[in-house]
Amino acid sequence: MQGMMMGEPLLISSILKHAATYHAETEIVSSLVEGGIHRYTYRDLAGRASRLAHALGALGLNAGDRVGTLAWNGYRHLELYYGASGSGLVCHTINPRLHEDQVAFILDHAEDRVIFADLTFVPLLEALADRLARVEAIVILAGPEAMPRSDVLPDLLCYETLLADHPDSFDWPRLDEDTAAGLCYTSGTTGNPKGVLYSHRSTVLHGMASCFPDVLDLSARDVVCPVVPMFHVNAWGVPYAAPMVGAKLVLPGPRMDGESLMTLFNAEGVTFTAGVPTVWMGLLDWMDTQGGSGFTTLERVAIGGSAAPGAMFRRFRERGVTVRHAWGMTETSPIGLVATLMSKHADLPEAERAVLEAKQGRPVFGMEFRVEGADGKPVPRDGASYGAMKVRGPWVASGYYNASGSTAHDGGWFDTGDVVTMDPDGYVQIVDRSKDVIKSGGEWISSIELENIAQAHPAIHEAAVVARPDPKWGERPVLVVHLKDGAAFDAQQMRSLFDGKIPRWSMPEDLVVVDGLPHTATGKLLKTAIRNIVSERLSQAAE
Amino acid sequence: MQGMMMGEPLLISSILKHAATYHAETEIVSSLVEGGIHRYTYRDLAGRASRLAHALGALGLNAGDRVGTLAWNGYRHLELYYGASGSGLVCHTINPRLHEDQVAFILDHAEDRVIFADLTFVPLLEALADRLARVEAIVILAGPEAMPRSDVLPDLLCYETLLADHPDSFDWPRLDEDTAAGLCYTSGTTGNPKGVLYSHRSTVLHGMASCFPDVLDLSARDVVCPVVPMFHVNAWGVPYAAPMVGAKLVLPGPRMDGESLMTLFNAEGVTFTAGVPTVWMGLLDWMDTQGGSGFTTLERVAIGGSAAPGAMFRRFRERGVTVRHAWGMTETSPIGLVATLMSKHADLPEAERAVLEAKQGRPVFGMEFRVEGADGKPVPRDGASYGAMKVRGPWVASGYYNASGSTAHDGGWFDTGDVVTMDPDGYVQIVDRSKDVIKSGGEWISSIELENIAQAHPAIHEAAVVARPDPKWGERPVLVVHLKDGAAFDAQQMRSLFDGKIPRWSMPEDLVVVDGLPHTATGKLLKTAIRNIVSERLSQAAE
Repeated sequence: MQGMMMGEPLLISSILKHAATYHAETEIVSSLVEGGIHRYTYRDLAGRASRLAHALGALGLNAGDRVGTLAWNGYRHLELYYGASGSGLVCHTINPRLHEDQVAFILDHAEDRVIFADLTFVPLLEALADRLARVEAIVILAGPEAMPRSDVLPDLLCYETLLADHPDSFDWPRLDEDTAAGLCYTSGTTGNPKGVLYSHRSTVLHGMASCFPDVLDLSARDVVCPVVPMFHVNAWGVPYAAPMVGAKLVLPGPRMDGESLMTLFNAEGVTFTAGVPTVWMGLLDWMDTQGGSGFTTLERVAIGGSAAPGAMFRRFRERGVTVRHAWGMTETSPIGLVATLMSKHADLPEAERAVLEAKQGRPVFGMEFRVEGADGKPVPRDGASYGAMKVRGPWVASGYYNASGSTAHDGGWFDTGDVVTMDPDGYVQIVDRSKDVIKSGGEWISSIELENIAQAHPAIHEAAVVARPDPKWGERPVLVVHLKDGAAFDAQQMRSLFDGKIPRWSMPEDLVVVDGLPHTATGKLLKTAIRNIVSERLSQAAE
Repeated sequence: MQGMMMGEPLLISSILKHAATYHAETEIVSSLVEGGIHRYTYRDLAGRASRLAHALGALGLNAGDRVGTLAWNGYRHLELYYGASGSGLVCHTINPRLHEDQVAFILDHAEDRVIFADLTFVPLLEALADRLARVEAIVILAGPEAMPRSDVLPDLLCYETLLADHPDSFDWPRLDEDTAAGLCYTSGTTGNPKGVLYSHRSTVLHGMASCFPDVLDLSARDVVCPVVPMFHVNAWGVPYAAPMVGAKLVLPGPRMDGESLMTLFNAEGVTFTAGVPTVWMGLLDWMDTQGGSGFTTLERVAIGGSAAPGAMFRRFRERGVTVRHAWGMTETSPIGLVATLMSKHADLPEAERAVLEAKQGRPVFGMEFRVEGADGKPVPRDGASYGAMKVRGPWVASGYYNASGSTAHDGGWFDTGDVVTMDPDGYVQIVDRSKDVIKSGGEWISSIELENIAQAHPAIHEAAVVARPDPKWGERPVLVVHLKDGAAFDAQQMRSLFDGKIPRWSMPEDLVVVDGLPHTATGKLLKTAIRNIVSERLSQAAE
């Protein structure tokens, strides 16, 4: 028997209508690419998103067509979020920080019919000019006075001119809530980027869960500044959650240096912000050089994207700001885990609370987690046993856009690629990436755990642990070290170092000393290259 | 084009699984009908709801069958919420405070196959014994040691015996999220009760919206005590919202007097509670007699069901507790409006904040409101213009269970029956009920507004304003007064009293003096009877 409740769909246009009706005068403040600050309200946003929806129709776009964006966090980008998705098109946010070839691949794979770009990205588009054959129009997010001249791209359209002649109300269609609304490509370290195609339903449900007190804790009394870019998993959904509750929205544009951020936060009364550790490192370091000045209104910061170092929690706390450590992926919209505390933690010593807050977090309602051991069965939730973290829920991708199959999506769960422990309350700690963990005789060995132990040895400048094939155990760990100048370290010392600190089956099988370790562009150990080095050195040794 | 996100349904069993997995040790504390306190955890709840689901199957119940409950707020009632709905049955909460005939009507109309009742309600069931022909089993929510003997109902089953032999895990079905989950009858003042049939989807979405900081603001650090009964619109959804966030749940059983509530709140560390004004009046009055003692942990109270008097806000505030005034109906799950403040109100003088907080509230995300004037068009949102309040949203009923049509549901909106003003930010103030408002020449006149003015006159003990038919204007207002002993009041004084305070067209046309006004059982003016008195008196006067 069916319930007798209204079948109102969960739509992105409902968020816009709610904010424009009941928070009409609440501000959206943008730091502009061209300099200066722009201010308007949710009512203005709705009017201009309406004009945009008309303009997109006039450009000949039809339901489901992809609209590409290359833009910073600003009001025109926000208009695209609502005007494109609300009218039944797909807002495809492109990460301009990717390699040119990847951007070209993404544009081509998504078949974007139109691209909307900030002035900043005209040179990027010019460089890609001969690979834009399919793109029918490029619209520059600027007024006519700021339009660039481009010999390479002579037909650039002006956003403000495009909007000028359209009415500022639009009859937002009553779409099926499963209709595609947004597209965002993951920037995996291997292979081509893969597209995640969000629906209206997933976006609204994720937005609702984001507002929970234990997630981002958003209300009409907040001033919210997403520093995480709007081309990065929809700025973690903040541009949807803020209007849902009528929070003032502050968009920092391209300026994410410490001074710009602190000035903006204090000037606009920002209470909540969200971003990756690198940005906060820059902000905190800059603040340390500034003597007495500090945050005047900031209450909490969500940190995700990669794990925040322990000192960052303390540095924010000393400045009166609470850190919410969060975990998510492009495939999970992104929010899945947030490290907020429970009642029973209130009386814990500071140090123990800090350990919990520094974990990746506990599950947000709506998301199911399964931590699978090497045998495919759930591991004990004891905070110590490792397993592959799989997730399921209404805002998790069921596959990749226009891709043939995905092994990460087998069996109704999405395999995050993270190897984790989970404690009895659900707090997750990432111990390794699945591809880096050493699978030895049915047990998993965390490369990171061994690396952290080795790293503490006085002779070692940098350490890496990778797998080598083993006929009996499948894989065995190998310790690869770059020693400090003049230092010595042998297999005997290695065994003494690890003895008693790890299970016996985790003991590295071999030691390889190198003159330097290869890294990725972002400074992480390049494990594929290290595995090659190990394989070469061990085969030489065997000869 | 469809998005590519997982089609995970929104199910009540997901709430239970979330709480049992990630808040396994968090407590559910119940004040028992038979006296004393019962404690267990979300893990225990899941185990016993599983046993119950097996037992319901063993009783022969099939998907969609209705399971009636006559019970206070307690852990066994909570097991029914999850065990019945989770397994695909409909949990039908019956209001035992209704008249015996209405209870009989509801039982018959819902076709409940089984009834689960607290010991308290055995006499009620005995009184209804000859009208329970369709009911196949009555289960008493007690252990074997507490089972009553009833000559009238010799076949009473024992809840604990029923659960004893079943396993404490159950494979909760993956239902369509639109499946019926709960049934609750409205206790309208006219006609038979009407059933609202909630779905899993509506229940989960309403629960999620309830957790928002601007709604009930629930987190894992809260201790939540729903004083509003679980037979009253599912205790406003709190039994679903609390486990969603892992809040400790405190269920007060039948004891809602001031002393019992305050003792329970302080003993269990309650931070949030919810209930109707009458209960809080009793609590505050009792506290006033107690000298220094006060709330030790309570932070906020949600008040709804009927409008809270202004003094109640002040009295709670003086005791360190914030009031959240909320509006809802059985047909709206119930939460639609909550009177939390916005950023711009932070610097308002206390008195102006108090005015806003005492309104019915502003719309919760997900709910759409339309305030329609006499001409069927939206009235200005100026805080002064009246109109009929209609609502729409995913947790609003689309009709009544097993009823032929509903005029309140015409045109895709539900007509709440309230006449309201709405200000530019969406804050709603109820000015009258639709059936009591006087429709005069295309304008609406609030009976309550005129009554409040009359009530202030020194000669008047009690005043009522009702409509009488008018050939030219449709309806005209009539003032009906019960004077104080020995006082006098005439039509001339009436006109002087209202002159300048109301628009000229709102001036009462006639004055009727009576020796007493009829009231409902709950002390409200009985307008239907007053209209009859007016009609009689005016026709006598005309003879």
